[in-house]
Amino acid sequence: MKKAYDVLIIGGGVNGCSIAYQLAKRGCHTAVVEKSRVGAEASSAAAGMLGAQVEIKENGPFFDFARKSRNMFSELVPELEETSGIPVSYLRNGMLKVAQTDEEASHLLEMLDFQRKEGEQAEWRGPEALSVQEPNIKGEVKGALFIPGDGQVKAKELTQAYARGASLLGADFYEYTPVIGLIQEEGKVKGVSTPAGSFYSSQVVLAGGAWSDLITDHEIQIPPMVPVKGECLAVRPAKPVIKATVHAPDFYLVPKPDGSIIIGATEQKGRMDKQVSAGSVQNLLSKALRLVPGLQSAEWMESWSGVRPQTTDGMPYLGAASLEGLWMATGHYRNGILLSALTGKWIADLIDGTADNQEWIETFSPLRLKEGKGNLVETNH
Amino acid sequence: MKKAYDVLIIGGGVNGCSIAYQLAKRGCHTAVVEKSRVGAEASSAAAGMLGAQVEIKENGPFFDFARKSRNMFSELVPELEETSGIPVSYLRNGMLKVAQTDEEASHLLEMLDFQRKEGEQAEWRGPEALSVQEPNIKGEVKGALFIPGDGQVKAKELTQAYARGASLLGADFYEYTPVIGLIQEEGKVKGVSTPAGSFYSSQVVLAGGAWSDLITDHEIQIPPMVPVKGECLAVRPAKPVIKATVHAPDFYLVPKPDGSIIIGATEQKGRMDKQVSAGSVQNLLSKALRLVPGLQSAEWMESWSGVRPQTTDGMPYLGAASLEGLWMATGHYRNGILLSALTGKWIADLIDGTADNQEWIETFSPLRLKEGKGNLVETNH
Amino acid sequence: MKKAYDVLIIGGGVNGCSIAYQLAKRGCHTAVVEKSRVGAEASSAAAGMLGAQVEIKENGPFFDFARKSRNMFSELVPELEETSGIPVSYLRNGMLKVAQTDEEASHLLEMLDFQRKEGEQAEWRGPEALSVQEPNIKGEVKGALFIPGDGQVKAKELTQAYARGASLLGADFYEYTPVIGLIQEEGKVKGVSTPAGSFYSSQVVLAGGAWSDLITDHEIQIPPMVPVKGECLAVRPAKPVIKATVHAPDFYLVPKPDGSIIIGATEQKGRMDKQVSAGSVQNLLSKALRLVPGLQSAEWMESWSGVRPQTTDGMPYLGAASLEGLWMATGHYRNGILLSALTGKWIADLIDGTADNQEWIETFSPLRLKEGKGNLVETNH
Amino acid sequence: MKKAYDVLIIGGGVNGCSIAYQLAKRGCHTAVVEKSRVGAEASSAAAGMLGAQVEIKENGPFFDFARKSRNMFSELVPELEETSGIPVSYLRNGMLKVAQTDEEASHLLEMLDFQRKEGEQAEWRGPEALSVQEPNIKGEVKGALFIPGDGQVKAKELTQAYARGASLLGADFYEYTPVIGLIQEEGKVKGVSTPAGSFYSSQVVLAGGAWSDLITDHEIQIPPMVPVKGECLAVRPAKPVIKATVHAPDFYLVPKPDGSIIIGATEQKGRMDKQVSAGSVQNLLSKALRLVPGLQSAEWMESWSGVRPQTTDGMPYLGAASLEGLWMATGHYRNGILLSALTGKWIADLIDGTADNQEWIETFSPLRLKEGKGNLVETNH
Repeated sequence: MKKAYDVLIIGGGVNGCSIAYQLAKRGCHTAVVEKSRVGAEASSAAAGMLGAQVEIKENGPFFDFARKSRNMFSELVPELEETSGIPVSYLRNGMLKVAQTDEEASHLLEMLDFQRKEGEQAEWRGPEALSVQEPNIKGEVKGALFIPGDGQVKAKELTQAYARGASLLGADFYEYTPVIGLIQEEGKVKGVSTPAGSFYSSQVVLAGGAWSDLITDHEIQIPPMVPVKGECLAVRPAKPVIKATVHAPDFYLVPKPDGSIIIGATEQKGRMDKQVSAGSVQNLLSKALRLVPGLQSAEWMESWSGVRPQTTDGMPYLGAASLEGLWMATGHYRNGILLSALTGKWIADLIDGTADNQEWIETFSPLRLKEGKGNLVETNH
Repeated sequence: MKKAYDVLIIGGGVNGCSIAYQLAKRGCHTAVVEKSRVGAEASSAAAGMLGAQVEIKENGPFFDFARKSRNMFSELVPELEETSGIPVSYLRNGMLKVAQTDEEASHLLEMLDFQRKEGEQAEWRGPEALSVQEPNIKGEVKGALFIPGDGQVKAKELTQAYARGASLLGADFYEYTPVIGLIQEEGKVKGVSTPAGSFYSSQVVLAGGAWSDLITDHEIQIPPMVPVKGECLAVRPAKPVIKATVHAPDFYLVPKPDGSIIIGATEQKGRMDKQVSAGSVQNLLSKALRLVPGLQSAEWMESWSGVRPQTTDGMPYLGAASLEGLWMATGHYRNGILLSALTGKWIADLIDGTADNQEWIETFSPLRLKEGKGNLVETNH
Repeated sequence: MKKAYDVLIIGGGVNGCSIAYQLAKRGCHTAVVEKSRVGAEASSAAAGMLGAQVEIKENGPFFDFARKSRNMFSELVPELEETSGIPVSYLRNGMLKVAQTDEEASHLLEMLDFQRKEGEQAEWRGPEALSVQEPNIKGEVKGALFIPGDGQVKAKELTQAYARGASLLGADFYEYTPVIGLIQEEGKVKGVSTPAGSFYSSQVVLAGGAWSDLITDHEIQIPPMVPVKGECLAVRPAKPVIKATVHAPDFYLVPKPDGSIIIGATEQKGRMDKQVSAGSVQNLLSKALRLVPGLQSAEWMESWSGVRPQTTDGMPYLGAASLEGLWMATGHYRNGILLSALTGKWIADLIDGTADNQEWIETFSPLRLKEGKGNLVETNH
Repeated sequence: MKKAYDVLIIGGGVNGCSIAYQLAKRGCHTAVVEKSRVGAEASSAAAGMLGAQVEIKENGPFFDFARKSRNMFSELVPELEETSGIPVSYLRNGMLKVAQTDEEASHLLEMLDFQRKEGEQAEWRGPEALSVQEPNIKGEVKGALFIPGDGQVKAKELTQAYARGASLLGADFYEYTPVIGLIQEEGKVKGVSTPAGSFYSSQVVLAGGAWSDLITDHEIQIPPMVPVKGECLAVRPAKPVIKATVHAPDFYLVPKPDGSIIIGATEQKGRMDKQVSAGSVQNLLSKALRLVPGLQSAEWMESWSGVRPQTTDGMPYLGAASLEGLWMATGHYRNGILLSALTGKWIADLIDGTADNQEWIETFSPLRLKEGKGNLVETNH
């Protein structure tokens, strides 16, 4: 039996599943081909912050895309939970970006200004106001930018909800099915080959995260990406110690609805392994305990890591690739969860020809770097 | 520092936590003292069915109590999820009670009659109607009673939501704190002693499930209970195979929102161990695969067990015990999740003196058996 | 820093690690490049039987190779345990091959004859003698072939012992390092490329098990293999129920030193996933409980699966591949543990040019099938 | 069926199982009654050091007992491994006791003197000699006492080997069977009562570790003990960084044969919970990384804890208790693994009346403290 689909998606991470969900909603016969299991990699390792205003610092199409994606969650989550039956624990508990030096404080005040000009909610908290709002933040803090509208989801549950929603709407999921190569004919993609046989489609979306460039047909130029391992911890205090997500310059604390707090994340370029090092645990814990000493007695729960794909200019690759019928949706780096809502819709729009934001098409094109727009980020293989 | 409380609850299972939640809501200074962790035993082993109409077959105060408890969930769940932040996956997917022999069918038809007289929704499905509603039920089935209003929760999450809700409202939880004995003075309870020191209160609720009778002060007569181990499995089909919970005479299939199906449960009297036997796995799987052959290719997930406390007349012990200030809330057997909603409220009412349903007070009194009302259930220690 | 080695081994399974161990012993600067972790796949899923006489039925170089490999364990194990510090639980508890039909019995009697002619120890057990030797075998059995010399190891521990032994002797292990392609120059292999950079060597051994053909350079003809998933269970009786490994025509029971019994294994061609199906659990348990009813009360422990690479003629590929400097050591199918001892030595001999068994060179050559010797096994992708 | 035994042992920890093993060897019909599973508590949480010379600093019967117990392992281990089939990874890799201040160095030099007078092997390593022996110890170290003969086992495997050895020699193990009380008659013990019914014997050994005093019959005076929680971590460097066990004043590093290193242990009096705190992880890791910076890149594996029973004078309770027929074998604190070899033999000697070391009988008598010999250790409940 020949396995033929309208669209094939390579990769069952949060973005592959979001694309499958949006396509399935539109009646498109879709299959996701996944090397191991749905959400096995970075998608279930993420802390689940929806921090559009924290990660991106400058105006332009990327900030625009991120904000639009974040704003989709308030409607998308109830729809997804209804369709899939899986709760994703969407919570708008706000984000505090704290400054531990005067320089950081001044940088945050600039950001405050920018956010307000953009019409986003943002407030300043001096040390005193901060200690009223979050009395357990005890480390030396010069002030904090508070973004009340920022929220979070459970990243693993969001991925599963997209996948189950798509599945119930008719999409097929092939797990443990690594793609070995693309099937091509006259310069057009015709499907993918796997150890479990071939799958056919004239539309293939490559959403393989940091594993996207393991597909190595010589004819396809996959634009450069570098894997960046991030390590996280979770601890659980007996009683809540912080209400908002707390973001310091080089680590963050995300209080989850189940009472645990995720402490993240390191950045290790060129590392694709899943190991968490003793040094990283020590380093993350030390910083967290210095800022919030009340975590000293919190229960140690676990540590884990995920590998995020970083592009050379920091923006994802969303759009048509160098082979006809091949699309890319990868390179989301630390913003995979946040961007997943709009990524799903945008790729579906591109495939069915209704995408009309020309600025996005150009900005996120996987081919943009050939034209000399990107700045190569240094890597340490 | 003397640890003194308005009310002490022994046992952090679903009922102990529900009681703590209701008492904390009323501003009562409450502590839960738990031998290991919250929800460590039967409360997180349950399949989470809210089958008021399936488990209890005859009219009377018990059926009344069970129905009222079930009806509380539609309001309690949103309140709990809001307070605790923990989703409990409440779902009203209905229950199909299937008959595999003519005798069972005739028994179910009587039950149908009874339910309708009681004003409950219940419908009959002949073999054909059944195969339309649930086409994957393939075993020989004589018909089924369908109860559209029956629902389910995730048992572990419900327990944690009660506990976290109570905690956020001010209740204290002492985990890994086994109670060694009651502190008494002049025929009144004054607290409990534990390896971590004494806790004081003039109101103590014994909600220890099958472990309730490990407290062995000679003066307190804990009415007889027998532990009954129940073993369960979970499997996950690639696509949904049943929509409703399916209840056959000696096993059941509960489809959970995450796509898994819980298959349960054995009944092994006098067993307090946590082992699942090879024979039980084989037996439960064989029955399930015969009734729903589509599960053949479902993914095996896991097996587990829980120990439920069975009383001699099958009804829980809810009320004043033989020592002044001591209350019991145990013996819920297979109905712990279902009854937890009202158990919490009822015990809180009893303690603050507002309980006025005299029939319930008498029916569920832990002292009822002395007065010759109970029939001793045979046990196989 | 250029990573250059005398020999590179692709794949950290039991055979890749055994090769690394033998090469490291000879002072060869060796590295193992592994896509995930050492022993992550079939090597730690195996039951660990060293059944040279059970798996191979006919005389010839394959039987010869298997016997020699089995015979190596009695000296190799103490050496490995000394070097690595890791106990591998080598045990010679014998193997009972039981016949459940007269046809099987007559087949086993032929095998008895063959084994004796070959000078191997083998004995016949009629039903009565069998019930004396193994009184818990209760199913209808026509007799059994007993091979007292067959043994077992712990497969995962053996793999780790090879790896740690090699590491302590100087070999490097790169985990989480998938090989994307071979580096070639003028028809010779020069190394491998991975997401973590290139590794250089003029000798590369492909020991990737069922994943060997994911390396898809067009120039290299990897001879055909089919992945065959095998599912296993473990149970633990309170007291030992069998002493020897018991092998029925379509399943086996391996009593391990820790008191558990491994029940295996299904054979599912073309499947590379790791899922264990509900149907397989039911099927394996039913057969095992019928033959040894005493397992009914044994504790259920776990289930798992592994994917074995099957070649078209059933024999492994050991030898020079189609590219100069490239060697293959894969296709061991169900005999990976048993053959690992000699595979390590044989590949090391081939690489350092001391291999002189011309029959083996020809029989196991990965290029043999081109010359029309192999019979294609049918596959069901 | 009445369950009657020659000897009943309460507690399936390392000492309960060692006693069962020694009694079973002598043909005594023995049963172990265990609240959860064999080795569930401190016995499988221990790092497995056999450091007779490190833990005990002064001459006398306790040092004598510890040395004799340690010396038993070289013969006991092969016997146990042969009987049980379970490898316990006995290793004599030596112990380095490092001094980080001059005061500690001078204390260690006294200890060196004492050890030598006692005829034990012990050597001094100045900073330079130390850096030759263990080049990865980089923290400021004033010198180290090296005890070449000290060894280690795998604590969990040792416990299981005792248990399985005993079981194969005829002992019965009842897991998940908490003892509620002792059965007494005319001032003599007659057995124990449990939720699974009564067990009868005129000889009962209480070997319940930190749980021993949960049995609270008023007539039996269990001498005072305080639970002390100890937390541990394990990490795994890619290559070995230390050869010997390294013992600093307030933490230790135990290199295990599988390549992992156990870092332990905190001491938290009055805590019976199993939680590991964030603060403890941070604290242990910081100390370890300061002393051995090469562990920075080691893989984080896991953390765990165990609860050890500490007596008021630091010595175990071994001998007749206040009730005829009741024996105690508990209070081993941090020396449970080390002392288990001789504890098993000593209790068996006491029960069968062949114990003749009168000094030990008096020194370890559970009744010694009544007579005013013990000094109450302060506790922080």
